[in-house]
Amino acid sequence: MLFTHVIKFGGVGGKCGGKNFSRIFGMSNKLFATCTEMSNVEHKLNIDTINPAIKKVEYAVRGPIVIKAAEIEAELNKGVKKPFDKVIKANIGDCQAMGQKPITFIRQVIAACMCPDLMQQNVFPSDVIERAQTILSGIGSTGCYSASVGIEHIRGSAAKYISTRDGYPSNPNNIIITNGASSSVKLILEMFVSEEAPVTGVMIPIPQYPLYSATVDEFAMQQVGYYLDEGNNWALNIDELSRALTEARKTCNPRVLCVINPGNPTGQVLTYQNIEDIIKFCIDEELFLMADEVYQDNVYQAGAAFHSFKKVMMNMGPEVTSRLQLCSFHSTSKGYFGECGLRGGYVEHHNLSEDVNYQLNKLQSAQLGSNITGQLVLDCIMDPPIEGQPSYQQFNKEKQGVLHSLKERAQLTTEMLNRIEGITCNEVGGAMYAFPQIRLPQKAINEANVRGMQPDFMYCLELLEEYGILVVPGSGFGQREGTWHFRMTILPPIEDLKIFLERLEEFHVSFMKKYAD
Amino acid sequence: MLFTHVIKFGGVGGKCGGKNFSRIFGMSNKLFATCTEMSNVEHKLNIDTINPAIKKVEYAVRGPIVIKAAEIEAELNKGVKKPFDKVIKANIGDCQAMGQKPITFIRQVIAACMCPDLMQQNVFPSDVIERAQTILSGIGSTGCYSASVGIEHIRGSAAKYISTRDGYPSNPNNIIITNGASSSVKLILEMFVSEEAPVTGVMIPIPQYPLYSATVDEFAMQQVGYYLDEGNNWALNIDELSRALTEARKTCNPRVLCVINPGNPTGQVLTYQNIEDIIKFCIDEELFLMADEVYQDNVYQAGAAFHSFKKVMMNMGPEVTSRLQLCSFHSTSKGYFGECGLRGGYVEHHNLSEDVNYQLNKLQSAQLGSNITGQLVLDCIMDPPIEGQPSYQQFNKEKQGVLHSLKERAQLTTEMLNRIEGITCNEVGGAMYAFPQIRLPQKAINEANVRGMQPDFMYCLELLEEYGILVVPGSGFGQREGTWHFRMTILPPIEDLKIFLERLEEFHVSFMKKYAD
Repeated sequence: MLFTHVIKFGGVGGKCGGKNFSRIFGMSNKLFATCTEMSNVEHKLNIDTINPAIKKVEYAVRGPIVIKAAEIEAELNKGVKKPFDKVIKANIGDCQAMGQKPITFIRQVIAACMCPDLMQQNVFPSDVIERAQTILSGIGSTGCYSASVGIEHIRGSAAKYISTRDGYPSNPNNIIITNGASSSVKLILEMFVSEEAPVTGVMIPIPQYPLYSATVDEFAMQQVGYYLDEGNNWALNIDELSRALTEARKTCNPRVLCVINPGNPTGQVLTYQNIEDIIKFCIDEELFLMADEVYQDNVYQAGAAFHSFKKVMMNMGPEVTSRLQLCSFHSTSKGYFGECGLRGGYVEHHNLSEDVNYQLNKLQSAQLGSNITGQLVLDCIMDPPIEGQPSYQQFNKEKQGVLHSLKERAQLTTEMLNRIEGITCNEVGGAMYAFPQIRLPQKAINEANVRGMQPDFMYCLELLEEYGILVVPGSGFGQREGTWHFRMTILPPIEDLKIFLERLEEFHVSFMKKYAD
Repeated sequence: MLFTHVIKFGGVGGKCGGKNFSRIFGMSNKLFATCTEMSNVEHKLNIDTINPAIKKVEYAVRGPIVIKAAEIEAELNKGVKKPFDKVIKANIGDCQAMGQKPITFIRQVIAACMCPDLMQQNVFPSDVIERAQTILSGIGSTGCYSASVGIEHIRGSAAKYISTRDGYPSNPNNIIITNGASSSVKLILEMFVSEEAPVTGVMIPIPQYPLYSATVDEFAMQQVGYYLDEGNNWALNIDELSRALTEARKTCNPRVLCVINPGNPTGQVLTYQNIEDIIKFCIDEELFLMADEVYQDNVYQAGAAFHSFKKVMMNMGPEVTSRLQLCSFHSTSKGYFGECGLRGGYVEHHNLSEDVNYQLNKLQSAQLGSNITGQLVLDCIMDPPIEGQPSYQQFNKEKQGVLHSLKERAQLTTEMLNRIEGITCNEVGGAMYAFPQIRLPQKAINEANVRGMQPDFMYCLELLEEYGILVVPGSGFGQREGTWHFRMTILPPIEDLKIFLERLEEFHVSFMKKYAD
């Protein structure tokens, strides 16, 4: 067998073959003497002998449409004429890539910890220096390995933050700091791999953030999708959970329920009552609850509030707290800080026995713990400057500035999308995304079928090719059959976002005309 | 079933039960209202239902003896009297924790990238500023997600470095940057998981660095140990590879050979000829070669030199380069930089087809790439200041200082260990460890059996309890039956190292007397 294989993109595939996938992953296309392309020997590790679970993994947020966007960018750079000058990327929640400024205090603490000499040079406020000294006194240098589950002081900061947030104590021993929340999610899901049949089932919302489907596939477990109720503002309906669970029990052993609140890609904020019902459901059905709460600071909707699963559980009393197994995830990548590249996050777990906790710790220890910078960011977020401290005013101004602007952008996005005929979008109540439904004419659907694409993939592809706007087709997140969506971030600066949405409308009108039944 | 379980430490276990494992992972022991201990409900995720592969994982470098050390430290902190004031930790290659200073240039580049405003404040040399500006011009902010496989510019730096090192071109498209080399190793091994029998076999040296055994167990693959030849300075003997492979083929499908050069824990440096033979062996036996070369800057032995597997392979010509599948790993944690906590590393692969490379990329993308700081460190190492640049002199002085001192410490360690009766140690030719053999009296072995411990575990435990010296028993790395060893780092500052080795000798003499046959 030779080395050449067509790369297939499953249901979301289109024109963009695998040949140029390299660009999106940050590769150039020059040829080198050692390039694989020069070899035509049959190799032992090839696409037929690779771990089959890996082949199943899909991650739409950086998937084929994004690869296509990179190709178009490369053409633009070469001077190829297009109806637009640049690609506007609304595919991923990468705040700082869209112009958000980092929080000064966070960056100063990092710089001080990295170059302690700078602390003598009158470039930092005194609370930055104090913070850096506190952390360094515990770890020595940022170049030292961290404790496997994270720096003790910073786990303490996280526990303090959670305690204040919820009004209930948090035990630092139940917190594990990882390279972003994605690693925490993977760490916890790995505990549920079973070597014997039946395979473990993991309940995930549809639409979902594709980390979940990707990780479930990577571990060769079974996805058990439950539909969010689009007609009811993406509410999480307990009857639908029951339906999905009953159905799944025929083919797998469902052990975990994943909930994302505020929702990604759907932007809804769960009500207190809904959270209570979900907790009861998990207890009744003996499910382990994984609560993705990385957008807990991103709530914009009037009257809505973030309630942590932990707090609601604690409010429900010992009958519930003793029975529920719960993990909550948080991240340094979202909120008002948006430090995606520095990879910090944590999981707080509840009701894991000490021996299971030991197994988690051991697994982390073989990877020698998470990177220190992400932990420093976490400390700054979990224990921010308080009133009276020199950094407080600037910190608070920057924080409120980001959150206020995100709220404006969420509202603008909801409003402008719903003005477009053929598009409806639930209110962007939280998180950083809109997930509008697009009603496509039958002619468009037929054309997509002919081209071997999902109709929303074709829609997004034309939007990209004609207007340079990059959004992710709903088929990458999952949706009810016969409905079509896309996910866009609300992150472009407000003036750009307006233009973005105007161009989107223009495209949509022309698309509908082009494929009018 | 209740929540309580005794935590067993398998063959290396001893007195130190699981109860206090938390300390080594950075936990305190205070009780909190939400503590697991308060619950006595049967939970769905427990030690019986957890992923059985995880339970098998062992990682001795942070294993039970290290947990015991943390207990002793806690006692010392409480004022408990011991024959020593502090625990000297020679268990892990954590350079900066043992007093090594970070390289100034690296830390300045990080600080400049994190706080670009500092570049206006006259605190950095001009080449630091230029470096930071080059990197930032490619990525925008350190807060942005990196490309999944790493920042394009930094992959380019790595390729340039490899090309210069080997005298052959390196393709940046074949380089993936990860959170430390450990993540690279895990990423590559995961490709070999097979869903159907026979299970994949992975050849690892005995003694080995326990990352390999831990990862092989985590993926439920089979370890195929091949013994290094202690009598011949830990040489890698091809006949022994053949023997191990033939044996393994009866029970599994061996697909991968892992080689660590310079050796961990064994400190040998492979000869050019040996590397050629290993490459031929892999081609003949159709094995995928994983070359752990993270200690490539750490060669001390007179006459020895580091030869990369890539270079040797290229020298062997197209018949070999077209047939061998090779991965080489490098890290920002070792060498003269020792930035363990910042988690940088890479894998360069050779002869992976583009579709397999795509699968690797995709898997990385679901975890959103590696942390930026580790990548910044990598850039500084791969593209260090050159003569004439403002940072060159200091950089070079710091680099040579560390390497010179490591060489001194390697020699001192070899010499002083071999002076001790009953201890023999091959020359520490490279890396950061000595792995001396200790000949134990039968009485000691009997006593260890009675106490349910490996004899070298008992030896290390008594060394720790009586002298406060922490080293890792050979049984955690693997060794020929009936031989006993321990691994110690050569990292304590030279004066401390002398005292350390004198105390070790004192202990050894008393131990031998105590258990004299």
